[in-house]
Formats: sequence, structure tokens, C-alpha cells
Amino acid sequence: MPTRKRKSLVIVYTGNGKGKTTAALGIVLRAWGRGQAVVFLSFMKTTTSNYGEERATRKLGIEMIALGGGFTWLSKDLERDKALAQRCWERCKEKLASGQYDVVVLDEITYPLSFGWLDIDEVLEVLRRRPKDTHVVITGRDAPQALIDFADLVTEMREVKHPFQQGIKAQPGIDF
Amino acid sequence: MPTRKRKSLVIVYTGNGKGKTTAALGIVLRAWGRGQAVVFLSFMKTTTSNYGEERATRKLGIEMIALGGGFTWLSKDLERDKALAQRCWERCKEKLASGQYDVVVLDEITYPLSFGWLDIDEVLEVLRRRPKDTHVVITGRDAPQALIDFADLVTEMREVKHPFQQGIKAQPGIDF
Repeated sequence: MPTRKRKSLVIVYTGNGKGKTTAALGIVLRAWGRGQAVVFLSFMKTTTSNYGEERATRKLGIEMIALGGGFTWLSKDLERDKALAQRCWERCKEKLASGQYDVVVLDEITYPLSFGWLDIDEVLEVLRRRPKDTHVVITGRDAPQALIDFADLVTEMREVKHPFQQGIKAQPGIDF
Repeated sequence: MPTRKRKSLVIVYTGNGKGKTTAALGIVLRAWGRGQAVVFLSFMKTTTSNYGEERATRKLGIEMIALGGGFTWLSKDLERDKALAQRCWERCKEKLASGQYDVVVLDEITYPLSFGWLDIDEVLEVLRRRPKDTHVVITGRDAPQALIDFADLVTEMREVKHPFQQGIKAQPGIDF
């Protein structure tokens, strides 16, 4: 493996447990606390969603770009979702190439990768060419092996116990 | 198992991978975004630490109480650390009983539990008696089985790949 001169990291939070997007938000908070520039791009949230994280980032002046089609496995229009994912990826490429950010979050990008809507080789190439000081945080289930191989830090969030199993609903402030 | 009437959750992030405290911070951000009251109590951070999360919570007006003795396995004075942990737990009890918070984070409380400095039965009893609307987030490696059994949501952060393996140091804004 070649020596990597950059110090910035590609961090992947994957697995079927809860806490992936949440951990990405924790990094956003830390980075913001240090005055770093952050952008959060979401492949699942829609432009109209207004969750706790959106309200928080808006109040903090952190850029959040939500270009997803919602929960795609419920979608009636996959072509639209595919086009949205590709549009979101175009924005990611701009942001990654810009050199303006200390941290770029690609939230739930693994889904369009799994569906074959984005090309993993292209994504890795864009990550490889990014400015050397830009950290990247990637979340979502089923991260492709090539992404895991490429990343510097990979954590699998493993579900041990989930409240939905007990009939408890998602809670505002906690889950969204 | 008796029916739990409360809707609030006890959430545990455990395991040896990265992202446990980070996910707790993500919940802090979401809850703050919704205008909820949050307190973050840390069993490891010291009163003088000034990490990204401390700078952020200070700027946001979120209460952070750091009463840990630092990294105890390097400590020269375990009796002091034990006393600090017990002092921190006293504060946790006050906060949990107060009913003033939507979210109480007990960051890295599993360590004093593992060391036998706190009594797990007492901790569970305090959690059981808390006001019904207070969510609790608990982080740290090696969560005791009794805590896992008690919790509503448990995620194990499993280390797949760690940058320290490659000689890359912890990064400000990302790790702390």
C-alpha cells in the first residue's frame, strides 16, 4: 500500500445498527466547535424534511444539502429517485473538489451505490483526488467492500437491541 | 417483561469501535435543534479539557459536566479517579432525578462500572426511577450485560478498520 501523505481521513459508518448518521452529526458538532467548515449532503432526506439535525444546522449556519427522494424502497418513481441521487452526487463532487471544507459528509450515499445508481469507481476516484485537508464522512448500510478497502476508518454499527422490536416508535430529538 | 409506559429511551452505544461518544454528540445536536434541554456528563474528560465538543456545547449553551480523571489506565492515582467518578455519578443522579432534561448523556460511564467504582444495581435503579420523559444516552466499551438487558436500544460499534493501525494520529474536529 502506498504511503498516504494526506492527514485527512475517509471515515465510514456502516452496519444495520443505529448511530451512523448520528455519529456523522457528532463529527459535525465537533468540527463546528473548532470553527471548521462543514457541509452535510444527504442522499435520503428530502428538500422539505425538517428534522432535528436540519433545524440545528440551520441555526448554526452549517450547510446541509438534502437531495434525496425520501425512503426509496417505498418510492413509486425509481427513475426520479435515481435522477435525484445523481444530482446529489454532482453537488458532492463540487463540494469535494472545492477545497473550501474541512469536513464533507456524504450521508447515506451507500444506498445509491448499492442500487447501482452511482459508480463506485468514480466515487473512489473523486475521493482520491480531493484536496488533501478535506475529511470525508460516509454513512449507510452495506458499504461496498471497495469503499471499506479505501477508507481510513471503518466502524460497523451492529444492532444489538432495537426499540422498534418492542413496539416503541422513533422519537423526535433522538432518532430524527 | 412488564409493559413500559414511558416513551423515553435508554440508549447504549458500546463496543470497541469508534463513534460512541460521537453518536451521543449527534443526539445532542438533534435535541438542541428541536429546542430540547440536554446535559452531557463525562466520566473521562477532565474539567480542563477543551475539545471540539466542549467548545461547541459552550457556544450552544448546552450544559457539559466533565468530572473524569482523564485516561485512567495511565493514572498514577486510582483512588483520586475513583472519587472523581463517584462525584460525577452524584451529579448524574441529581440531573436524572431533576426532570429538567429531555436528554441526559452519561458519557463513558461503563468504565467506572467495569472497574467496580459504581454499583450497577444502583445505576439501574436510578435509571428506572427517572422522570418518564427523560431520554438517557450511555456510552463506553464493555457495557455490563445487566445494562444491555435494561436498555431499549443498544448498538455495538465494531472496529472494522482504525487509522491508528496505519500510524495516522487522532485529528482535531474529527476525534476530539
